[in-house]
Amino acid sequence: MSQAAGPGRVLALCGGVGGAKLAFGLAAALPEDELTVVVNTGDDFQHLGLEISPDIDTVTYTLAGLADRERGWGSAGDTWNFLGALARLGGEDWFQIGDRDLALHVERTRRLKAGESLSEVTADLARRLTVKHSIVPMSDQPVRTWLDTEIGPLPFQHYFVREHCLPVVRGVRFEGVTGAQPSPDFARDLARRDLAAIVICPSNPYLSIDPILAVPGVAEAISAAASPRVAVSPLVGGRAVKGPTAKLMAELGVPGTVTAIADHYVRLIDAMVIDIADADQASCLEARGLAVHVTQTVMTTDQDRVRLATETLDFARSLRTLAQPAASL
Amino acid sequence: MSQAAGPGRVLALCGGVGGAKLAFGLAAALPEDELTVVVNTGDDFQHLGLEISPDIDTVTYTLAGLADRERGWGSAGDTWNFLGALARLGGEDWFQIGDRDLALHVERTRRLKAGESLSEVTADLARRLTVKHSIVPMSDQPVRTWLDTEIGPLPFQHYFVREHCLPVVRGVRFEGVTGAQPSPDFARDLARRDLAAIVICPSNPYLSIDPILAVPGVAEAISAAASPRVAVSPLVGGRAVKGPTAKLMAELGVPGTVTAIADHYVRLIDAMVIDIADADQASCLEARGLAVHVTQTVMTTDQDRVRLATETLDFARSLRTLAQPAASL
Repeated sequence: MSQAAGPGRVLALCGGVGGAKLAFGLAAALPEDELTVVVNTGDDFQHLGLEISPDIDTVTYTLAGLADRERGWGSAGDTWNFLGALARLGGEDWFQIGDRDLALHVERTRRLKAGESLSEVTADLARRLTVKHSIVPMSDQPVRTWLDTEIGPLPFQHYFVREHCLPVVRGVRFEGVTGAQPSPDFARDLARRDLAAIVICPSNPYLSIDPILAVPGVAEAISAAASPRVAVSPLVGGRAVKGPTAKLMAELGVPGTVTAIADHYVRLIDAMVIDIADADQASCLEARGLAVHVTQTVMTTDQDRVRLATETLDFARSLRTLAQPAASL
Repeated sequence: MSQAAGPGRVLALCGGVGGAKLAFGLAAALPEDELTVVVNTGDDFQHLGLEISPDIDTVTYTLAGLADRERGWGSAGDTWNFLGALARLGGEDWFQIGDRDLALHVERTRRLKAGESLSEVTADLARRLTVKHSIVPMSDQPVRTWLDTEIGPLPFQHYFVREHCLPVVRGVRFEGVTGAQPSPDFARDLARRDLAAIVICPSNPYLSIDPILAVPGVAEAISAAASPRVAVSPLVGGRAVKGPTAKLMAELGVPGTVTAIADHYVRLIDAMVIDIADADQASCLEARGLAVHVTQTVMTTDQDRVRLATETLDFARSLRTLAQPAASL
């Protein structure tokens, strides 16, 4: 296990479904005290009076082995009687909430209202679902992703779920981020000088990773970090495995390529893991000073997740091994 | 239909399961514009951050034909995945909430928070569940039933559900009742001079009907009403069909008899419908100036409910016929 990363802690930045798959692999490859999964909370929203944290839930269910494998989100084998009854009552039923899943939202809402922090609630609920590794929100203060679209500004979930990502996006902003701080565990890990690696999971850079990077102090800390910093590409042959990454990049005037993602993460990464389908761009990345690992990045099975995580950790270790002699010159 | 009560509106005071069965019968026997079911809200409570109105829900489900017939409360054929998941997360799972049932609580909570009154929310949710007759809360202001027990004061649901009615009760009080008003539709009906009847449903007098009577102005209006006022006994042979009525009466130092219930409703009723099993007390009731109708009061089938309601309405009409000549003397 620990030989994959060597001693030290791995800090992984993560969004929902795609990122959670790599987080699952990292958790399988690392002891429980050597991984912190920092999760985007820009997608969080209040709905039906409930505090919903979709990415935290997806990562929690995935690490607990409870996630629905088809959908990638929600609890496997869940039922939908609440949502059906709500529709009959004229309630808002566009956001899918399964009956079991609802318990997480109700309990989180109750505990937040009782004064617990999102970090505390997230850690305890994950623990109760038998997750051993650390899942922490990017911030305990509310940050809300808004999309400026052709039909006007939309909160993230309205864009993503209700409007099925159809409106053309002109910009993305993170409401409340200037007043936010990294959550205590995230801040603690950002301040560590002995991180084995910082891994940016294969999540949407604009919608899932940027909110984390926008929390004051985070981008600065990562750009100054001595640890190897590796981004795993969310694109495969210029297309997203799931979600609107490529469509969004086109609308923002950015080519849908791993090179464009590398440029987006400029000064924040030392290396990228890209798919075989994008191998032709390895030289572009290397020309930018990045180390590149080319592999199969689509994660269909648990074995795929663990393999990609292990390769990513080995790759990060090799970077550290390379960097150390250079630093000692 | 309308010949059962003749012209005019019937006002029924009602608690949960037992009362709801008679309300179902009254709704079957009366046109939709000739019945108001006023429901106890002393059992209402906040739980898991939700506004729960158990008696309103029971009456709503029962009139909609959706109630679980075994339990008497909740939605028939409901599932329990939310509650199971909540227990796993360490949430409070002592109050039974089915997955479909939860939609009612979530939607009510959302709409109350948005500023609608409990009357408005109750009427609209009932309408969406195809209930044609009027279900109104006793008050739009919160009134909360507390029981002073041998183990200290308990909110109603803690006594009733969590503690299974086991603690010995020394007294009952209705927190907030002095600041409450009858709900608008209830106040309107109380002010009518043309009510066909006021019916007290076979609900617990101390826990389900007393909160309604304790709302300022209600007992006064009923005691001054010219309409026939009939209580249907919740006891059968000195025992409650369901719930703690008889046990509670013993603890409060009152004999568990229909005569004691008549005395409890003194000046508020002209007549009682009692079970054949209590026929020996008819003379005691008549000695108190009450008219008595003796019949089979246990409601097992829908036919039982409609028959008891029709008999009660016919009985009330006979009282009016008797009273009219007397008034014209």
